[in-house]
Amino acid sequence: MYTSSQLLENINAALAAITYPNRPEGLYEPVKYVLALGGKRIRPVLTLLAYNLWRDDMERAMPAALGLETYHNYTLLHDDLMDRADIRRGHPTVHRVWDENTAILSGDTMLVLAYRLMQQTGNAAVLELFTRTALEIGEGQQYDMNFERRTNVTVDEYIEMIRLKTSVLLACAAKTGALLAGASDADADVLYRYAELIGLAFQLQDDFLDVYGDPAVFGKKIGGDILCGKKTFLLINAWMRADEGQRERLVSYLSSGPWQPEEKIAAVTALYNELGIADVCRDAIEHYFAQAQEQLGRLSLPEERTTELRVFVGSLLNRKS
Amino acid sequence: MYTSSQLLENINAALAAITYPNRPEGLYEPVKYVLALGGKRIRPVLTLLAYNLWRDDMERAMPAALGLETYHNYTLLHDDLMDRADIRRGHPTVHRVWDENTAILSGDTMLVLAYRLMQQTGNAAVLELFTRTALEIGEGQQYDMNFERRTNVTVDEYIEMIRLKTSVLLACAAKTGALLAGASDADADVLYRYAELIGLAFQLQDDFLDVYGDPAVFGKKIGGDILCGKKTFLLINAWMRADEGQRERLVSYLSSGPWQPEEKIAAVTALYNELGIADVCRDAIEHYFAQAQEQLGRLSLPEERTTELRVFVGSLLNRKS
Repeated sequence: MYTSSQLLENINAALAAITYPNRPEGLYEPVKYVLALGGKRIRPVLTLLAYNLWRDDMERAMPAALGLETYHNYTLLHDDLMDRADIRRGHPTVHRVWDENTAILSGDTMLVLAYRLMQQTGNAAVLELFTRTALEIGEGQQYDMNFERRTNVTVDEYIEMIRLKTSVLLACAAKTGALLAGASDADADVLYRYAELIGLAFQLQDDFLDVYGDPAVFGKKIGGDILCGKKTFLLINAWMRADEGQRERLVSYLSSGPWQPEEKIAAVTALYNELGIADVCRDAIEHYFAQAQEQLGRLSLPEERTTELRVFVGSLLNRKS
Repeated sequence: MYTSSQLLENINAALAAITYPNRPEGLYEPVKYVLALGGKRIRPVLTLLAYNLWRDDMERAMPAALGLETYHNYTLLHDDLMDRADIRRGHPTVHRVWDENTAILSGDTMLVLAYRLMQQTGNAAVLELFTRTALEIGEGQQYDMNFERRTNVTVDEYIEMIRLKTSVLLACAAKTGALLAGASDADADVLYRYAELIGLAFQLQDDFLDVYGDPAVFGKKIGGDILCGKKTFLLINAWMRADEGQRERLVSYLSSGPWQPEEKIAAVTALYNELGIADVCRDAIEHYFAQAQEQLGRLSLPEERTTELRVFVGSLLNRKS
């Protein structure tokens, strides 16, 4: 059994040790570039922590852990292209450093590289889960894009979208670790549900921190979601609770109007405050976290065996950045 | 054992019988659209013909056959996007009917759908071959894009590019059929090499027909490759054999100059004729076809068992369209 920092260190070393062909020029460089940008490696750590609930090594689960991280980075690469995002983790995105075609093709290649790693497990259930998950994530991304053109997105629709776009990959990561460890189907499913709920809490926290985070530690600029009018949990709840006058103010401040960025952020945040949106969001995070904890109690394992997993997830949910 | 037309009919029926989710809007419609455009279904027919060399049913090889066709259509979808091509099989391409983001994401989803079908075989060797092939095809596409910016592409480089971009998928299709039929590794490898050589012949024939095809049956407009300055087997050989004056004429006619399309096509074709390029191309096709035939003779099977496969491939190579 390892601490999550030990696992993270080993994941980063293993990722850096993967070699890619030097040719053709322009195909594998972006793959290496993206995987070297770092990040918290939450998915592979989750796989190894789940595996370690039953097994004391990490080697047998490492290919799947690397496959899921490779897959995750492929989704970021293509999502950034579709969003025309310029920056990822403080560096220019692939379509900015190279070009759009390079981003399309290198992303496609990363998806296949992810499959190659997943196939190394030789585990049909893991492969089937991975494929189902990849389809769901594509659906989540499509819902997210479709929501941009709608004003009437409901909270339930939003939760289902982030479940597909974000949570199922965490769920897949945790269940994959369990399956590779030879856990029972029941335990594997409990871990799936646990990580799925944690994923919802993570995403709502991201939405929360975009407005209420400490700028000194958040890493990104505060208010980015407000500036691009993104339909977050906060905005959707604000819209639902707003009276006619407040809705008009929201529409006006989210329009391209004459506002300075800081003005926009301040005005929408003030409206969120009037409507008590911070508490609505905190309550929802707490709700999903509590549901997740309850799941964990159902594992057929001594509770102390889950300490490292609880500590890791807790640290991510109490994080300021 | 079936004729290739019977197999084609069953492939089309099975493709049409696959159901996709109705939601989210915009994700699966393009997948259905692309797969319904038809085509010769060469890859799945090849898989089933190879399988039928040893087995008399087609059911057990059908999921892989459909997976390879789905994969092939995903590559067309993304390649058309990268080439900014407007028309595929007489219909507007996905990024024209929908938009670029839809083409990216639906293509990604098709790749995963292809994997889902391949995984249904439950055959690790088939999956490994498929993944290796998909990586090679990405490399071929990247070489093809890189060649656009170069004037000094050699014949060997071109052959290696089309081997990666086109041949290895046919080779994979044939070998997959053999593996699923339980053929020996030696026989499976012979079929791989056979289809790989046939693939080279197919591509050179495509290059040939673009200039020397019968417009009444070719299906596409004659001279398309010349108009977009594509580095085909013909152009690369012409460039190699041209003297200084002829090279100047080539450069001039392939430039954006004051030429009408028909003028361009006529001038470059005249140059090809002066240089005897049609024969160079015919000889190369004959060379690869003869090598392929030789491979087929190495199979540990009675020769009459390969009749249907030979007839199918022969019909594609003597085709006028």
